[in-house]
Amino acid sequence: MALVTRFVYRSLKTIKTPGYWAKLPTHRWTTLSLRALATTSPMRTEDILFRQLFDRTSCTYTYLLADKTTKEAIFIDPVLELVDRDVKLVEELGLKLVYAANTHVHADHITGTGKIKQRIPSCQSVISKVSSAKADIHVEHGEKIKIGRHELEVRSTPGHTQGMPRKEFIPEINQTNRDVTICLYCTLIIKIFHVFLTALFVPLLHKQSYHFTGSPELLYESVHSQILSLPDDFLLYPAHDYKGQTVTTVMEEKKFNPRLTKTKTEFVSIMNNLNLDLPKMIDQAVPANMVCGLHDVDEQQST
Amino acid sequence: MALVTRFVYRSLKTIKTPGYWAKLPTHRWTTLSLRALATTSPMRTEDILFRQLFDRTSCTYTYLLADKTTKEAIFIDPVLELVDRDVKLVEELGLKLVYAANTHVHADHITGTGKIKQRIPSCQSVISKVSSAKADIHVEHGEKIKIGRHELEVRSTPGHTQGMPRKEFIPEINQTNRDVTICLYCTLIIKIFHVFLTALFVPLLHKQSYHFTGSPELLYESVHSQILSLPDDFLLYPAHDYKGQTVTTVMEEKKFNPRLTKTKTEFVSIMNNLNLDLPKMIDQAVPANMVCGLHDVDEQQST
Repeated sequence: MALVTRFVYRSLKTIKTPGYWAKLPTHRWTTLSLRALATTSPMRTEDILFRQLFDRTSCTYTYLLADKTTKEAIFIDPVLELVDRDVKLVEELGLKLVYAANTHVHADHITGTGKIKQRIPSCQSVISKVSSAKADIHVEHGEKIKIGRHELEVRSTPGHTQGMPRKEFIPEINQTNRDVTICLYCTLIIKIFHVFLTALFVPLLHKQSYHFTGSPELLYESVHSQILSLPDDFLLYPAHDYKGQTVTTVMEEKKFNPRLTKTKTEFVSIMNNLNLDLPKMIDQAVPANMVCGLHDVDEQQST
Repeated sequence: MALVTRFVYRSLKTIKTPGYWAKLPTHRWTTLSLRALATTSPMRTEDILFRQLFDRTSCTYTYLLADKTTKEAIFIDPVLELVDRDVKLVEELGLKLVYAANTHVHADHITGTGKIKQRIPSCQSVISKVSSAKADIHVEHGEKIKIGRHELEVRSTPGHTQGMPRKEFIPEINQTNRDVTICLYCTLIIKIFHVFLTALFVPLLHKQSYHFTGSPELLYESVHSQILSLPDDFLLYPAHDYKGQTVTTVMEEKKFNPRLTKTKTEFVSIMNNLNLDLPKMIDQAVPANMVCGLHDVDEQQST
């Protein structure tokens, strides 16, 4: 019984603003999916180590994925203040951390990627090419990253932050879950098959609030074509959550997400009229995250 | 391929103190395990719905378990302020909530059980008999509670709060994880089999801090005999966590928990010398939780 396993996450949006951010080019999203390298080589659930970690301050979920046999592992969206926790976990589990990836240039927290690289020099940082952020590896739509016998598949999911120049930023913002939004966040989906209990980790979007300055039309298309087209029982793991929910499903988002259940016209209207505050951490987080969290870390935060 | 599925959680400790609590008898722990009613009737992972929910205020994890086919469901340790979220989830998933169980008389938050019963009158409250708390169903060691085609098995895990009269209370307390303790918290274990990717949910303890006024000797024995005797790769889901960790394993607790790796003598010494502050909510939570959260809910909090 071949078991295809995929991890997918949105990666990198870029931000077009005056000053520091003016150099950032376009606004695009990318997702990564981790799947079995070959379906002829059966992969089963127990081949994958999956850990969901939470930052209570920014409500960011960090994910640790690993090939249990080869021990190769990747962090997705680690948080600077929790690097000790995360590195300790990798050590205790006996893993070989090969990548620390950021799904985008975060505005609500400083990534732990830079500090993790200091602690584990063999670890390489990963971010999307369109982000223009510093990293060891820049990925584009369709590329793959090997994690042991599995791989991450990069998927482009544009729309979140495209256009809308009247706003200076388009970061994710502290509002909640299903009541607020839908953009493509760092998400993982676990599909439990009906026969052999195999698990399929696949890309998905998450209901989430954010400063929407992108293209609502494009976002609508991305969400519906790339996320909601997945099987109803796919589990979706969020990049953020502010109501204590750790997982959702395609079915729930299709049926109950207050924005995803709207028509395209209604959706565009909603997204064009969001008036959310900027993230508190934005002035510190974005400059740091443009250099994968190394900004000021050496001097102030690496001890 | 028969798949045995178990959910287990610690239940009810009682508290011996002056005044209101003086009537509480002894200090004991109980765990519940949900397992397949009959191994001759194969149960697979997809037969079980499992949701982990988080309360950012008290850092309590609430669990929703359900039989996906019959739709019967149980909440474990729901939190009063999050009842709307939890009831909405049950409705969206099309579940029939049959039980809302409390693992013990909480001191750090008010249970949502009473309010859930107001919203879903068919739901019955569950708590351990030794707690002396009000509930529709009182359980004792060895009893079972049916959840569709699965069942909860009550397990006694004494030691946490026994004896030590110099302390007035023994509630769980806001300290963190592996760095602090080990008592038997509401925990679930998921065992991923190596062949057919079936899942085994079983009881376990969690590293956790608390006001220890129990019997450290008895606790040591309970933890080692009932929890750490489980297979190394059993996943353990905590009742509380303050560092953003959502799950651990038997192996990790056996190898890295700073208290569980100690000798019995060292362990007893540590537990006899804890000096933690009382939970902030204790004066409100315990009286309310003695009546399954109905205390003052009708007047103040049920709207």
